[in-house]
Amino acid sequence: MQISSNFIDSLTPSAIRYITTRIRADKKIGREIITFAGGMPCSDFFPTEEELLQIFQSIMQNEGANALQYAATDGYDPLREQIALLVQRVNIQTTYQNILVTAGSQQALNYISRALIAPGDLVLCEDPTYVGALDVFRSYTTNLIGVPMEDDGMDLSTLEEILKSGARPRFLYTIPDFQNPTGRSMSVEKRKKLAELAKAYSLLIIEDAPYSLLAFDEPPRPAIKSFDTGDHVIYLGSFSKIVCPGLRVGYVIADPESIGKLVYLKQRDDLQTDNLSQRLVCGYLRDFNFEDHLNVVRRAYRERRDAMVAAINASFPAGVRCHPAGGGMFLWIELPKHINARSVFDQVYEQGFAYVPGEFFYVAGDVHNTLRLNFCSFTPDEIAEKVQALGKVISATLNVS
Amino acid sequence: MQISSNFIDSLTPSAIRYITTRIRADKKIGREIITFAGGMPCSDFFPTEEELLQIFQSIMQNEGANALQYAATDGYDPLREQIALLVQRVNIQTTYQNILVTAGSQQALNYISRALIAPGDLVLCEDPTYVGALDVFRSYTTNLIGVPMEDDGMDLSTLEEILKSGARPRFLYTIPDFQNPTGRSMSVEKRKKLAELAKAYSLLIIEDAPYSLLAFDEPPRPAIKSFDTGDHVIYLGSFSKIVCPGLRVGYVIADPESIGKLVYLKQRDDLQTDNLSQRLVCGYLRDFNFEDHLNVVRRAYRERRDAMVAAINASFPAGVRCHPAGGGMFLWIELPKHINARSVFDQVYEQGFAYVPGEFFYVAGDVHNTLRLNFCSFTPDEIAEKVQALGKVISATLNVS
Repeated sequence: MQISSNFIDSLTPSAIRYITTRIRADKKIGREIITFAGGMPCSDFFPTEEELLQIFQSIMQNEGANALQYAATDGYDPLREQIALLVQRVNIQTTYQNILVTAGSQQALNYISRALIAPGDLVLCEDPTYVGALDVFRSYTTNLIGVPMEDDGMDLSTLEEILKSGARPRFLYTIPDFQNPTGRSMSVEKRKKLAELAKAYSLLIIEDAPYSLLAFDEPPRPAIKSFDTGDHVIYLGSFSKIVCPGLRVGYVIADPESIGKLVYLKQRDDLQTDNLSQRLVCGYLRDFNFEDHLNVVRRAYRERRDAMVAAINASFPAGVRCHPAGGGMFLWIELPKHINARSVFDQVYEQGFAYVPGEFFYVAGDVHNTLRLNFCSFTPDEIAEKVQALGKVISATLNVS
Repeated sequence: MQISSNFIDSLTPSAIRYITTRIRADKKIGREIITFAGGMPCSDFFPTEEELLQIFQSIMQNEGANALQYAATDGYDPLREQIALLVQRVNIQTTYQNILVTAGSQQALNYISRALIAPGDLVLCEDPTYVGALDVFRSYTTNLIGVPMEDDGMDLSTLEEILKSGARPRFLYTIPDFQNPTGRSMSVEKRKKLAELAKAYSLLIIEDAPYSLLAFDEPPRPAIKSFDTGDHVIYLGSFSKIVCPGLRVGYVIADPESIGKLVYLKQRDDLQTDNLSQRLVCGYLRDFNFEDHLNVVRRAYRERRDAMVAAINASFPAGVRCHPAGGGMFLWIELPKHINARSVFDQVYEQGFAYVPGEFFYVAGDVHNTLRLNFCSFTPDEIAEKVQALGKVISATLNVS
């Protein structure tokens, strides 16, 4: 007797996790896939054994076994204080009372969705957007409307038309920095304008910013929340891309009343985020030179992006457009309109390569000629070689089809 | 603008977390409360710095930075294998494919509730039961019916009457070992009978077993799941009470199809349980003598229980009944029928003591003369002294009221 309900039986596997699971299974039987599909940061830049060891010993010396006891649901206060300092880099002025520590920002997104979305409620998001967000929203039976993306971020004219039409969305979800999947960033002008629209229309903005500090070509832009004058923006952050994802630590910044309500949900879910991981991340931010670390990651990722852009330009077939990305982890590729990137995927996978077909990221799943490449998992030299090989396979596939 | 919805505005703080938060706040302003209220295991028996250090170094040597990367949602396979070995102690024969690792068993309970409970659905549970389970069930707008407790566990005649009446509960929730809050255990006979009822009525049983290995007076009893012949029992386990709770690691055992469906929920919540904590718990189970560790905890907790029972018998007012507990962490106290343990709490707290008023654990909240004491947080000598002092305060309070 397996568990069953209309709800649980309606869920499908995460499209990207499906691909990575397939790759892992192939690896187990000795078949190595060269993958640009994952959303994984590069493990070369994770905290080292020595660094973690040093933090761990200092935790145990200062707190002893108390560090392993049940703790407050809202999070480890010294980490909350470090987070308040960290987000000054994107012009957010806040204090620890406005911060809830979560097991990654995915969990924050789930809590906010559970808190706010009743079946049939309207939610707005960029189109395309992070597939893990779409999966969460859909699991609450939301009515999703996608706002088209422009090169400088969400099309605010379309957004304003939707709001003027009288639509009452529960919230608008946006990834303003180096968006997943498109790599695009919202201009500072649009950030200001969006904060104004939020106020004018009492619109709640969920600003998801896992990549905000991975800016290569200019300093990180001010968060939309930095232009927020009336608690209309809830900011989600994550350490997955700037420390490591295996320690599950993310956070929400909101007004203290909203934080309190999310705490009630967390008490009903996992009671609290892992103590040790909270303390390790806290120590990594506080006891080492985090600016140096960020600069190392940014420099390495920038070289990888440049290597991938060059390899794509040199080896991908004509008619392919590669969107520039000023930071983050992803390049967004448009194939000629008549090409289906999912069909191409099957053939490319046969040849030992993987990417994510772009259609998964669209609200309606109706755009078929795009794909996402992660540029951070290989060295520049490896990228030059592997992307060229991928380009040949794609060219051959397109010539046949 | 704080977040708001009918749902989120209906949630209240966890009653016990409310008490522990109050105690923590008092501590910050220099007021120490002697508390028997928490559900905390004793930190004297957590893994030591040396043990954790040894496991950590072995993780980093074997896996390097990969240990800190994103990983599979279902869990770290070597830990899943250790869990399969561990539950042989309660006669469960299973394999890692039947196991999902969660961030504590509370998370498993939330996932199962989210998967199965639609508004108005019927759920059965013991009455009284774990308040954190009641909070979860209520958050899915369930129709809760409590089945009375007897000294040897749930009253199965009442259960069978409910089932015979044609009620179709989504599941029955039970804590068969050293139940929270009553400390009672279900007899082996009743476990067999419950597994039979589950089969006869297609009833899904959620067996929550965080205390099962903390048996003082006899070996751990076979799980209800060990008598399950048709996947009618989902088993929840936790390392919070037998390793430590600050590393958030628990698990669900079910048929692989149900595990797969819960994985879809976890992908939408936190993607995966913390890597490092999974590996630390795995190493602690595998690389040390876990039987020795369990015996140390059992012996210490047994002494503490004995000390508390003796102190209660010696110092609590006449008419108070203390239920025996063969293991676990809690003693359940019945005051004379006309006494309200919540009113007594307020006066006892003024004198610097805390316990949990029992009414929070009841489905209808309508039994007022009970309270729960945690016996594991102090040494036997401390217990003798502090419980005697508590007994005096309670006696004084009862004499006045």
